[in-house]
Formats: sequence, C-alpha cells, structure tokens
Amino acid sequence: MIRLVFDFPYDTSLGQNVRDKVNGEKGRFLMRTFPDGETYVRLESLVSGRDVVINASFVHANDWFLNLLFLADALHSQGARRVGLLAPYLSYMRQDTVFHPGEAVTSKTFARLISTYFDYLITIDPHLHRYHSLSEIYSIPSTVLHAAPLISEWIHQHVEAPFLIGPDGESAQWVKAIAREIPFVVLNKVRHEDGRVEISWPPLEDLGEKTPIFVDDIISSGATMLQAVKHLKGLTTVKPICIAVHPIFADNSYQKLQEVGVERIVTCNSIPHPSNEIDVSSICVEALKF
Amino acid sequence: MIRLVFDFPYDTSLGQNVRDKVNGEKGRFLMRTFPDGETYVRLESLVSGRDVVINASFVHANDWFLNLLFLADALHSQGARRVGLLAPYLSYMRQDTVFHPGEAVTSKTFARLISTYFDYLITIDPHLHRYHSLSEIYSIPSTVLHAAPLISEWIHQHVEAPFLIGPDGESAQWVKAIAREIPFVVLNKVRHEDGRVEISWPPLEDLGEKTPIFVDDIISSGATMLQAVKHLKGLTTVKPICIAVHPIFADNSYQKLQEVGVERIVTCNSIPHPSNEIDVSSICVEALKF
Repeated sequence: MIRLVFDFPYDTSLGQNVRDKVNGEKGRFLMRTFPDGETYVRLESLVSGRDVVINASFVHANDWFLNLLFLADALHSQGARRVGLLAPYLSYMRQDTVFHPGEAVTSKTFARLISTYFDYLITIDPHLHRYHSLSEIYSIPSTVLHAAPLISEWIHQHVEAPFLIGPDGESAQWVKAIAREIPFVVLNKVRHEDGRVEISWPPLEDLGEKTPIFVDDIISSGATMLQAVKHLKGLTTVKPICIAVHPIFADNSYQKLQEVGVERIVTCNSIPHPSNEIDVSSICVEALKF
Repeated sequence: MIRLVFDFPYDTSLGQNVRDKVNGEKGRFLMRTFPDGETYVRLESLVSGRDVVINASFVHANDWFLNLLFLADALHSQGARRVGLLAPYLSYMRQDTVFHPGEAVTSKTFARLISTYFDYLITIDPHLHRYHSLSEIYSIPSTVLHAAPLISEWIHQHVEAPFLIGPDGESAQWVKAIAREIPFVVLNKVRHEDGRVEISWPPLEDLGEKTPIFVDDIISSGATMLQAVKHLKGLTTVKPICIAVHPIFADNSYQKLQEVGVERIVTCNSIPHPSNEIDVSSICVEALKF
C-alpha cells in the first residue's frame, strides 16, 4: 500500500524527502477562505483505506491549527485507515505546569487535541523538561527522534578539528549526545541579584586553533547564542559555527548571528529555513516503519 | 453569584453592554506570544465555582481559535462551574454537507470542537440552511436568537415611510420577520446559462417616495447588495438605507456601498464595526437567564 504523505500547511523539503524514501504519494488538498475568514477544505487525493501521514512543523501554528484539525477530521471521515502526525518541531511543550496562579497548562490542552485527531505522533527532539515522556500528556502512540547522530555526522564530514560549546546549562544534553569523542564545554548562565544575566565560561585550554561549534536544540530569539558568540571573540580568532536542530530565528537573529561574525549557521530541516543543511528525513522514515 | 463575562479576543461594546445588564464582572486574562508563535495564557480573574461566559464573534476566527480553546480549557480546569459561549456571529455553518467529492464538512468538525470545550452556546441568526436546528451538530444546549424585532424597532424609530427590499431569495425570511406591517419586496437572482447573474425586480408601485431599506442577515462581499443599490437608482430618487445583522464587509464593501449612494448603513453589534447602531445585548441577556 502506497503511503500518502501530506505537507501542511506548505510544501517542505522534509516532506518531499520522506515521500522519496518511502516511495510515498503526495497528499493533495485544496483550501480557500470565505469573506468571514472561514476555510473551505477539500481533499483531492482519494484516501479511503489508506495510510496517511501529515507532515506539519508547529511554528506559528496557531494561524493554521484549526485547518489542520479540519484536514485530519476529513481524512478520518473519508475513510483513511490511519492518520499519523509527523511534527518535526512540536510546540506547546513549554508550559508543562502552573508556575504562577491562573496559568493555563497549554501543553495538556494541545496534547489532548492532537491525540483526538491523530492516531500517532512522531517528533524530533521535543522540549521535554518536567515531562519525561510524551506519553504523560499524549494518549496516542508517540515516537521521539533525535537529531544528534545526524549532527555528529555533519560535523565529522565538514569540520577537521571541532570543539563543541553548549551556550547554557539546558544545552548540556544536546552537546553530550553530539560530542562523542569531540572535546566540549557547557557554559552557564549566572543570574545576578540586580537582574543582569552573565555567562560563566570555564577555562578553554583545549580550544587552541580548533573550530568552535555552538550547539543547541533550538535557536529562538538567539539572545543566549549571540552573547556567547560575542564573548568568544576574545578567546580565539577562529570564527565559530552555530548548529541547532530547530531554526526558529525570531527577532532577526539569523542575520544578527551572521553579522556578529559566525562563520556558518547550520540547522536541521525540521523547520524550513535557508540554513537547513542537515536532512532529518532518514530518521523520520525509520519511525514511520513501526 | 456575579457572572464573569469575557470578551475574546478583544473588548467589544456588546460584551460591555451584556456585563452592564447582568451586573457582571469583566473576565480578565493575559496572553503573550513566544518566539515560535506559541501562546502563553494566564487567567487573571478567579474563576473557581463561577458562572463564566465568553463573548466571541467568529469573524476571522481561525487566527485565535486555538487560544479560545486554551482559555475555555483553563476556565474548566481552574474550577469554573459553567463555561458558556456567546457567539453573536457563528461561522462554519456554510459547509453543511458534501457538495463535491472530497469536501470536508467543516460545520461538523467545528461544532464538535465547540461542544467539547463549552457547556452551552448562544448565537444570533446563524446560517441555518440544510440544518434545521443547531442541535443536529452541536451536542451542547444551544439558543438561537433573532435580531429582527430589534431591527423592526430601529426602523420604526428612525424611518417615517419605510419600504423593505430583500436583495435575494435567501433574504426573504429576514425581510418577512422584520417587515410586520411595512411593505416589502424580495428580489430574485437569475443565473443565465452564460454565467451572468441578473437580479429580477418585481414592479415597485408601492415604493413612491418611501425610503427604500435593503435588509439581509449578513453583508459579506456585499456584491448582491451593491448591484441592487445601483439598479434602484433608476427607480427612485430617495437614497436607500442598508441594514444587516452581521457586518462582515469584506472587499472594502462598506466604502463601496457608501460611494454608490447609500444614505445610511446600519448593523447590529454582533460584529464590532463603525456601522453598529443596533445593540443586541438585550436579547443576549434574555438567553443568559436560562
């Protein structure tokens, strides 16, 4: 049976690569907007009895979330055998508890919605902090994939003498997973009583003429990495590389990082971006085989 | 018990008028957006044990629909006794069946979502066509209100010698409900074989020097009403009034109607718009008393 892989809300290289690897067919649909903002949705692929995957990366997803539910619901009601969600970047993992009275635990609401409209979930390096597993909030089978091996491979192929730097404590897990035999350090954010945030650097005796590579799971506002890159200038003349799994690059941070003297910015195609150099379709395809 | 009435996603005159009439308290919440587009939601009102209504008009609602579900879910999980939805304008009533193969019946998906997150629904003059009652798709108690009596009242107070015109066959039900003893006609759209749409006018002997008033439930693109207003110019020198329950006014049609010589455009405040002159809060409040 040929698998039907939808790209939503727009076509992506990842979706195309996944289709190529599983010999899948592109899922086709039509959406139009009525004057009041209501969406018209029509499936153009025949879906009855078929195994369907929707590839949707949850960046600025609020705008199209209802349309995604319409699509999933239409697939079910038109007889798709299974409707899976491949969410290379999964949002709404942040608010995993009530930090301040009155806060909505959006991760739970979101997980319940996804679990209602999809039969399974596959994602890459989600922000698991207080939750240890997606199954704590998602009631459908879920698979968590890791980009670290692909990032390691990229580094081995492209950088002769790498030296990894994790820009803050939370990046430690990613740095360690990627490092293997590569030397690395993890920086620490120190929050002063007056509100200032400073990055504390350990001694970098091993750095020498090696190529510094900042690695993190996600670049959002890019503030931490920007600060770290600036500081690094006083420690080495070798321009650094920045690698992240998920390229959000809010606040023009992609340009800012380039301007501050980063040699190269490399990301996975979990979110479409000009910096995508590491294709994660191979691990997605492995997960689709379960 | 003081009722908590939220305006979502923005404050409206209707919400304020409803609060004034039920001696209600304004529901307060905070929403912020993270760099990836994820929303942070915090209730600032204490909701435990309280009777809550969210007033939300579903125009261009896709953008904020997920946030509405977060808000409703947070209200429930923080102990609200009941969470009602006052949707003065209810969208997703249009696609009530499969007209062409592959179409998503969005009305059902939407109704199921609303029915999952709210305890009851109140709306004004929804587009009931193939569905005869909201209960065919909404599993929660629903109340349908009608603006016709308020529109009749406005006409009696503001127009000495009115003459109602329904711009197409579908408007007949609204025209008849509003007319009572006012003379009226209903125009008909004739679709020619070559695709042209023409409006067929009955003889208007009764019009004389009366003030022509076009009435409809909704002005979306405004195309039908514009065409009718233009034609009317050859029949009377008295400038017409246009009245609608729901002012969508897509495609700059509010300005176009003014430019084509409409004396006055009057709408209900079911959707916030500068043309709002008829306040529907009184009928909403009646419904809230059940």
